[in-house]
Amino acid sequence: MNLPIKKKSTKKNINMANKGVRLEEIVNESNEYYRVNDIAVIHKKPIPIQVVKVSYPSRNKAVIKEAYYKVPSTTDYNGIYKGYYVDFDCKECNGLTSFPIKNVHDHQVLHLLSIKKHKGIAFLLINLLKFNEYYLLDIDDFKQYWSDSKLGLKKSIPIKDIQTLGIKINIGYKPSIDYLKGVDQLIEKLNK
Amino acid sequence: MNLPIKKKSTKKNINMANKGVRLEEIVNESNEYYRVNDIAVIHKKPIPIQVVKVSYPSRNKAVIKEAYYKVPSTTDYNGIYKGYYVDFDCKECNGLTSFPIKNVHDHQVLHLLSIKKHKGIAFLLINLLKFNEYYLLDIDDFKQYWSDSKLGLKKSIPIKDIQTLGIKINIGYKPSIDYLKGVDQLIEKLNK
Repeated sequence: MNLPIKKKSTKKNINMANKGVRLEEIVNESNEYYRVNDIAVIHKKPIPIQVVKVSYPSRNKAVIKEAYYKVPSTTDYNGIYKGYYVDFDCKECNGLTSFPIKNVHDHQVLHLLSIKKHKGIAFLLINLLKFNEYYLLDIDDFKQYWSDSKLGLKKSIPIKDIQTLGIKINIGYKPSIDYLKGVDQLIEKLNK
Repeated sequence: MNLPIKKKSTKKNINMANKGVRLEEIVNESNEYYRVNDIAVIHKKPIPIQVVKVSYPSRNKAVIKEAYYKVPSTTDYNGIYKGYYVDFDCKECNGLTSFPIKNVHDHQVLHLLSIKKHKGIAFLLINLLKFNEYYLLDIDDFKQYWSDSKLGLKKSIPIKDIQTLGIKINIGYKPSIDYLKGVDQLIEKLNK
């Protein structure tokens, strides 16, 4: 998840190839397409916010006057597709050669591994900005790198490993990013 | 979902039998028990908040200065259990004879029906405050009353119908409310 902290104004235009369209935006668009067409019901979870002060200028009208962004305890997206529980997070990778493992929080990895254990579909959807490519990476494939990072053996995943292990997802028109095609492959794998 | 709007201070103590413990609290406790014991991964979604003004008194420290509660587009709870996608909302009913159908928002009903269609488990968890009883009501059973209400034929469900159609859930120690026992029955029904 990208907490809405201050960003340099140039950030959005780094990747001219995809015209600054952020991964989350095209995923949200695609989810809407999936819902409207009755293909899947997948939603982005609201950003958790710790509310500290609320005022009530009028009846039934609450105005939050002080609040803070919290670190989400899970991932950003979950839902149902073909009867399967689907859970994932979106990650953007700006590197030319590697993806820093710390870009995925430990609690997100543990959550996704737990989902996998309960026979759900759990993955990362990674946008390789410099390549203008999108990959769906099964959490089990990410796990080995993450375990190594916990042992101090590794700090990042080579981009070429993501390109090899991941399922490449193409950008389209409707939906913008048809990532459920990749999920179909994970479902096949699950049932092998 | 209960938006944290101003409540009369007596509200929490209306039902002395359950000592003012709110349904959501015992559901959250139970979900934690299920997660810790690796039985299911079910979370409460954060309350959606529309952020209007944010200030940055220091680097990387965002303080929300103006924000508003939004109406959630789905239900409060979802997750995975035995490989099944589970989705539900908690409702408290203060009536002696009936439960007002408008207590469940249309978009929640439509969302739950959609989940059911995609082969998920979708229900309402209802606390009958006056009876100190808890029922898990399959969204399909709620549907008939809701459809009638849309046609102007009904405004509420008789409590006795909830007690007949619903699956009674007992309050316990660990977990506080073992509602997955009711979900087991819905899974059986799904596979019939």
